[in-house]
Amino acid sequence: MVSVSEARNLIMDNQISVKKVLLPLAEAHGYILADQVLAAFDTPPFDQSAMDGYAFSYDNWDGKTELIVIGEIQAGMQSSNILKPMQAVRIFTGAPLPTGADTVVIKENVSVTGNFISIDNRQITKGSNVRSRGSQTQTGEIVMEEGQLLTAPAISFFAGIGIDKLLVYAKPLISIVITGNELSKPGGILSQGKVFESNSFGITAALMQLNISPVSIDFVEDKEEELLGVIRNRLGVDLLILTGGISVGDYDFTAEVLNKCSVERIFHKVKQKPGKPLYFGRYNQTVVFALPGNPAAALICFYEYIVPVVAYHTKKDYLKKIKMPLNDEYKKIGGLTHFLKGKTNLETVSILSGQESYLMNSFSIADCIIQLDEEKEWYNKGDLVDVLMII
Amino acid sequence: MVSVSEARNLIMDNQISVKKVLLPLAEAHGYILADQVLAAFDTPPFDQSAMDGYAFSYDNWDGKTELIVIGEIQAGMQSSNILKPMQAVRIFTGAPLPTGADTVVIKENVSVTGNFISIDNRQITKGSNVRSRGSQTQTGEIVMEEGQLLTAPAISFFAGIGIDKLLVYAKPLISIVITGNELSKPGGILSQGKVFESNSFGITAALMQLNISPVSIDFVEDKEEELLGVIRNRLGVDLLILTGGISVGDYDFTAEVLNKCSVERIFHKVKQKPGKPLYFGRYNQTVVFALPGNPAAALICFYEYIVPVVAYHTKKDYLKKIKMPLNDEYKKIGGLTHFLKGKTNLETVSILSGQESYLMNSFSIADCIIQLDEEKEWYNKGDLVDVLMII
Repeated sequence: MVSVSEARNLIMDNQISVKKVLLPLAEAHGYILADQVLAAFDTPPFDQSAMDGYAFSYDNWDGKTELIVIGEIQAGMQSSNILKPMQAVRIFTGAPLPTGADTVVIKENVSVTGNFISIDNRQITKGSNVRSRGSQTQTGEIVMEEGQLLTAPAISFFAGIGIDKLLVYAKPLISIVITGNELSKPGGILSQGKVFESNSFGITAALMQLNISPVSIDFVEDKEEELLGVIRNRLGVDLLILTGGISVGDYDFTAEVLNKCSVERIFHKVKQKPGKPLYFGRYNQTVVFALPGNPAAALICFYEYIVPVVAYHTKKDYLKKIKMPLNDEYKKIGGLTHFLKGKTNLETVSILSGQESYLMNSFSIADCIIQLDEEKEWYNKGDLVDVLMII
Repeated sequence: MVSVSEARNLIMDNQISVKKVLLPLAEAHGYILADQVLAAFDTPPFDQSAMDGYAFSYDNWDGKTELIVIGEIQAGMQSSNILKPMQAVRIFTGAPLPTGADTVVIKENVSVTGNFISIDNRQITKGSNVRSRGSQTQTGEIVMEEGQLLTAPAISFFAGIGIDKLLVYAKPLISIVITGNELSKPGGILSQGKVFESNSFGITAALMQLNISPVSIDFVEDKEEELLGVIRNRLGVDLLILTGGISVGDYDFTAEVLNKCSVERIFHKVKQKPGKPLYFGRYNQTVVFALPGNPAAALICFYEYIVPVVAYHTKKDYLKKIKMPLNDEYKKIGGLTHFLKGKTNLETVSILSGQESYLMNSFSIADCIIQLDEEKEWYNKGDLVDVLMII
């Protein structure tokens, strides 16, 4: 039996390969960039008008004479005009400046007489209202470093500089295996002795919170050969999560079957409540968690131990860990770390009622898990505790 | 032209119907519950053993005599035994207690001799290690109130009490229409005068951040009849988002086309930078945002004005609004609210370089948008500012 901190260390010491994947830009939101990105083009790709107005050559203008308007350039058009001194073109936001022009005067600062414009020279300097070629990015320049979160503005930025694929840290492939003879699908009527199966729902939802869909969910009766076949079949994923059959009862043979599948046991049993039977093992590039069948214990183990493994793969921070003053007194027996369902307000955290591990009522409205340390037996109101936010 | 706060008020005053939808439990994670939920069953549905051990009748035991073990009940089994005084059954975690039993002694506190067990009476009281029927939920009891966020533990809870559908606040149906002749798909080579289209990517990614996929994305050239057809076709959604063609240039006819489609203009132009041309309108049960084509302005308008509309529909809080001391001095002209790309640390917020609205570099690494008020012209280091977190 290991302590909670030993369990955390053993889990992180046994993580192996992180994978990178090249994703289409439209799918890359929310991932972490796995390599630096270089600009493939100058952007803007040409000197571009920032406003609706008239383009002309500033240096070839005497600051007062009217200019003759020789054409018009809309956004998306090619500019075939070559401006001579004292000429101008009507131009629109986003349109390329014609050769010979370097400045745009906005239409509000111009008086038009037939084909001639007179410019109010007070508001204008050379280069006004022009986004010059390469002023956003220059070809070959590093435009983003590895490790950056791909937000919506980042995705928009990459689209705008013509990048349509990004190398990112991949989500781990995850399979779920639910064991238990007593389990019945929610929605129907229970036959005698059965209870509703909830761990597949709870764990899948917790993965949804991390934007991950499991690659498979198997439901297995407590039959050794059946479980053996399913586990062998799933040992290619990055992360295999089993629930149930991991205590030491006569019908709890998950650990034994994992052993038969050559999964190396790293630890089995943690000095914690709930979730004492937690098992962690490894098989080649697959890490295996066998969680207690108890739904509250299963989810607490998921948040405390599995989320960090997913974070190791994706390089993302998912759940906030904070310290907060406890709003209650609490007495516990030394020797086990307690994980309690909690609810925070701005200043303190309260222990919810109904902490027995089969009671999900309080967990269903909790926003955090409170960790009470192994050796400490008495908590006073106001004591600082470790809080793992789960929303 | 309205102020930013007038714009916010006009938008919220023009929201209409919020929709509720009955979702399968497996899809309900992350939604807000739209009605209270009643328990349809007692759970546990029977008196259930919480441990592996032996079940017996506490009152019919004298505290010392050996009991005879007459059978075994595994989880998921039906218990047909009716216990007589001084009888016990071997029982496993989750299994139903047989009629006549009310207490479970864990196997560690029992000595076994053939078919007889001797119980260590020091650790046992009546009802020990039994989860009694209905101790989690009782039929007809309110088990969750309207307005609750459906976390993974909540989903697991509902599964465990046999509920397979939940009424939740629906996500709004959203269509996106991108206009602009100058736009070219990222990944290819630009022809002269074109720029890469990024708003469809940026807005779709920003919607992904809210766990929403748009129902459609249309790309329309700046041709009035084409745009008219597309808008008419999309006016059945809850939220129509257009980009581009909303300034007052000769080729900006988005507002005019919306008018021809009988969309009522609520406001057009906001005293802000960037995003001054922002348009907001309404048509029956559809609200319409026409955003500037400029990618930074489009996304800032999305975060500042559209996210609250989505939140109104789903009842969720998406982006955190905080006040932080500014890490820079900043001078601006009065009359416009400025929205600046920012980066926070634990204590302060810094204005990123490259604030011109066509520059997405800084936005791509920003974690927030800083709001500088319309009338204020000079910000000192340390001044408290409104910060909208975007990650």
